Amino acid sequence: MKNKEATLMGEDLLEAFRKTKYKLGGNGPRTVQVLEEAFSEVDGGTESDFYGKGKLIDDFQNKMADFLGKESAVFFPSGVMAQQIALRIWCDRKGLQTVAYHPTCHLEIHENDGLKELHHIRPILLADKDRLISLKDLEDLKEDISCLLIELPQREIGGQLPDFHELEKISSYCRNKGIRLHLDGARLFEVLPYYQKSAAEICSLFDSVYVSFYKGIGAIAGAILAGSTDFTEESKVWKRRYGGDLISLYPYIVSSNYYFDRRIGKMGQYYEEAKKFAGFYNSCHAVSTLPEVPVSNMFHVHFSVPLEKLEPLLIGVYQATGVGLTGYLKSLGNGGCSFETNIGDLYEDVPEERKREAFKLLDQKLSEIIG
Amino acid sequence: MKNKEATLMGEDLLEAFRKTKYKLGGNGPRTVQVLEEAFSEVDGGTESDFYGKGKLIDDFQNKMADFLGKESAVFFPSGVMAQQIALRIWCDRKGLQTVAYHPTCHLEIHENDGLKELHHIRPILLADKDRLISLKDLEDLKEDISCLLIELPQREIGGQLPDFHELEKISSYCRNKGIRLHLDGARLFEVLPYYQKSAAEICSLFDSVYVSFYKGIGAIAGAILAGSTDFTEESKVWKRRYGGDLISLYPYIVSSNYYFDRRIGKMGQYYEEAKKFAGFYNSCHAVSTLPEVPVSNMFHVHFSVPLEKLEPLLIGVYQATGVGLTGYLKSLGNGGCSFETNIGDLYEDVPEERKREAFKLLDQKLSEIIG
Repeated sequence: MKNKEATLMGEDLLEAFRKTKYKLGGNGPRTVQVLEEAFSEVDGGTESDFYGKGKLIDDFQNKMADFLGKESAVFFPSGVMAQQIALRIWCDRKGLQTVAYHPTCHLEIHENDGLKELHHIRPILLADKDRLISLKDLEDLKEDISCLLIELPQREIGGQLPDFHELEKISSYCRNKGIRLHLDGARLFEVLPYYQKSAAEICSLFDSVYVSFYKGIGAIAGAILAGSTDFTEESKVWKRRYGGDLISLYPYIVSSNYYFDRRIGKMGQYYEEAKKFAGFYNSCHAVSTLPEVPVSNMFHVHFSVPLEKLEPLLIGVYQATGVGLTGYLKSLGNGGCSFETNIGDLYEDVPEERKREAFKLLDQKLSEIIG
Repeated sequence: MKNKEATLMGEDLLEAFRKTKYKLGGNGPRTVQVLEEAFSEVDGGTESDFYGKGKLIDDFQNKMADFLGKESAVFFPSGVMAQQIALRIWCDRKGLQTVAYHPTCHLEIHENDGLKELHHIRPILLADKDRLISLKDLEDLKEDISCLLIELPQREIGGQLPDFHELEKISSYCRNKGIRLHLDGARLFEVLPYYQKSAAEICSLFDSVYVSFYKGIGAIAGAILAGSTDFTEESKVWKRRYGGDLISLYPYIVSSNYYFDRRIGKMGQYYEEAKKFAGFYNSCHAVSTLPEVPVSNMFHVHFSVPLEKLEPLLIGVYQATGVGLTGYLKSLGNGGCSFETNIGDLYEDVPEERKREAFKLLDQKLSEIIG
């Protein structure tokens, strides 16, 4: 019953994490309060959007098009839907059902092969799963593609980023070769402080852009797909085909707009806090972060001790200090384990002393284990 | 500039309709208040659903499975998504990408050919667009199909229904022939009073069932797909492929549940009111309803006068009586025009005298026109 034990242990860690007074990651629990806060100042007489039309959706789409520096933007219920559609449009235009993306691309590992099953598009996996796509990977590509998808930051490897200059070279290469460049910007807002660029400057390198509102922004759900008007108009046809053109999307639009306004100006703070937070982890024995110095509000934490030993240790730290670090752990092939963390509103509210105390105890317990 | 004039006239009618004090159709405007009312008694600490899991979504899915008499139910953001997926599953199981449905089926006329573009499923159109599908249409079918979709009531022809006995015969025929029967029950709740059957009794004739929560129920958006557990589990795989497996669907689930509880017991009242309402129309010159006697809360109103003449006439009635009948008209090929109406909460609040006054004036003005 190994599986059952593992599950039970996982539930214990989650339970202990939930009970902590101070959580260092995120914006707090995803409760109905998130919606209620977003709607607290909205007049009850405000008219719903209506199958993608109306002032409420138009205003937000225009605001996002401006922010991203694109001609037009369309609100989607999800990024899964928006991105598959973007790739389909670029493939149709070129008449070639081949694209390229990173081996850990969301479309490859989190969407039950929707791109392949619904569109029969063949993805070529560029780079290897532990590093970013480089210009050289593109140059070495033996066959033509309709579209290259680049994810900024590359979430599954801790949220890493290419140099901006490398990105510019990739963009130029694609334009010269007639390859469309699509941005998976699920966490684009979170990397603006590192790049020291506006969203529009980054997006100008791409033909189409997807951004999400429930990662760093912390809204309920929702996505924007932006590009030229002919592109976004075509995406609306597909949005209806997918069943994403709901009679009312306003619960997501209103909350996306509310939390965008509330948090877009905090991305610099999250980034600075993430660097300090990673510093705490890297000061401990048997712990390292990926990347070592974060380039956004997120990073991965790697432990060179097995999950079975780390779980009770973490629970001990939570119970002794009231500080929670993670509710889950993932076993790694190398005998260690890891989890992903990200900075949101909660970090700043935890007293510095509490953080120091928690990491001191964590380091002490880890030292004991590794002897 | 004929088109522009037509549009302006349409806007005038809509504007005049909006200004009326008494609207005879629907549940009132689709404003943010619809959401705020649904959430007014929900505790802010209630946890969101999480990618299709959690108590909030489980409870509603179980409640709907019970109500529909099916083993299992899955909440979808839209019926478009749910129904395409249902047909895809039945086609995959039989290894035959052919289905049959009515020429006015939602999948055929309102979804930008999503079924064909995303699944390459070929629909055979049964019956003709002005009448219901009968057992004979099925018997006359020259080739095998994986699935027959039946819509109850058939919305685009005024919300007509087959006899229940005919439905039973169609169901038996399908079972004998190895054809899956899918119910487009967008307005299923609305026909229970006419059939004098429980939803479960009707659904027992079908292998899979879709119901909607923003028609008669009047919620924000959302759908349920129900069937055997192996079927619904497979639908969840596709729900993720479509990008419908949102991190949070609770804005739709909470409102669907709230308005279901509030209105499911009123369907009998809506049905009785619809019959009286249709009677008012049928008592006027140059007006007839389809069906003549409604079998649900909805029907179509047909005028044998052209749209251009009817619009100013209706505006006059609205302004003189304060009673609003419709905000749009659709030209018909025969020189007349029509609109769709449905009974919701508003009808009962309009004083009987006002209704009589409005229809008396409507009849008088129509008599003058037709001379």
